[in-house]
Amino acid sequence: MEIDLHDYIASIPDYPEKGVIFRDISPLMADGDAYKYATDKIVDYAKDRNVDMIVGPEARGFIVGCPVAYKLGVGFAPARKKGKLPRETVSASYDLEYGTAVLQLQRDAIKPGQRVLVTDDLLATGGTIDATIRMVEELGGIVVGTAFIIELKDLHGREKIKDYDILTLIEY
Amino acid sequence: MEIDLHDYIASIPDYPEKGVIFRDISPLMADGDAYKYATDKIVDYAKDRNVDMIVGPEARGFIVGCPVAYKLGVGFAPARKKGKLPRETVSASYDLEYGTAVLQLQRDAIKPGQRVLVTDDLLATGGTIDATIRMVEELGGIVVGTAFIIELKDLHGREKIKDYDILTLIEY
Repeated sequence: MEIDLHDYIASIPDYPEKGVIFRDISPLMADGDAYKYATDKIVDYAKDRNVDMIVGPEARGFIVGCPVAYKLGVGFAPARKKGKLPRETVSASYDLEYGTAVLQLQRDAIKPGQRVLVTDDLLATGGTIDATIRMVEELGGIVVGTAFIIELKDLHGREKIKDYDILTLIEY
Repeated sequence: MEIDLHDYIASIPDYPEKGVIFRDISPLMADGDAYKYATDKIVDYAKDRNVDMIVGPEARGFIVGCPVAYKLGVGFAPARKKGKLPRETVSASYDLEYGTAVLQLQRDAIKPGQRVLVTDDLLATGGTIDATIRMVEELGGIVVGTAFIIELKDLHGREKIKDYDILTLIEY
């Protein structure tokens, strides 16, 4: 059965600020068939790449990546905002509209040589995913692909991570 | 194959503060077999209860609940910290050591009469899960069970949600 995932995205004008259309994946996640359909697309993509591990940034990257990890029988490592992870971590910063933010990954999350798929709900400017990739590589992981539900074409995130393979399921 | 999930929990003394032993589920999630084993235990529990929907609080509740939702073919709704969710929400507050915090759930996340499983990584004082349950019920959902990887017995969270059925996989 083919599902058009656009039908499961809520578009909210002027959120979080005027002039921005926020694309909300909540209706997709709330529908069992649509959530499974999107997950299975990413699973198929990951299978071709012999993925050992999934890494996703807090928090919607967990919702996308965790069922993929489960289906593949591989592990999941969360990239979290600074100060949320116990034990030794690596860090990477990324630009926000004003200032920067920091993501962290536990140092033992990735073993050198592991083949890693990085997941998030949305490819926008690519800053978050780029920071996540840098941490995976600092730990010796090989980023064999990136996967997103939505790509916001106008924000050119694809340029930011142009050295990596990219799967996006729908575009705006 | 039986797995002792205790073997996949990192115990960190004096974190986040002196006298507390933090139980870190990261090694469990990072191991594909252990993550699948834990998830399947919760899936079996959910199957007996005809679950329509999974709800989990930010952010580790997503890591536990999302693969369960995927396997059952049902939806997942995230309970998020205040201000993170677009569109209309319901709210519930819970006590922290100092002050209170607020969780939110989108108003259309649950349809009246849906049978809901609430998931989180850890049953501690039960405050977070109690707030999540109250929001589900405000929306007309029926909480048919709660499921956690870890139960911290000394914090008596089980008392806080004593009107509900509880699955915990390991105890400390």
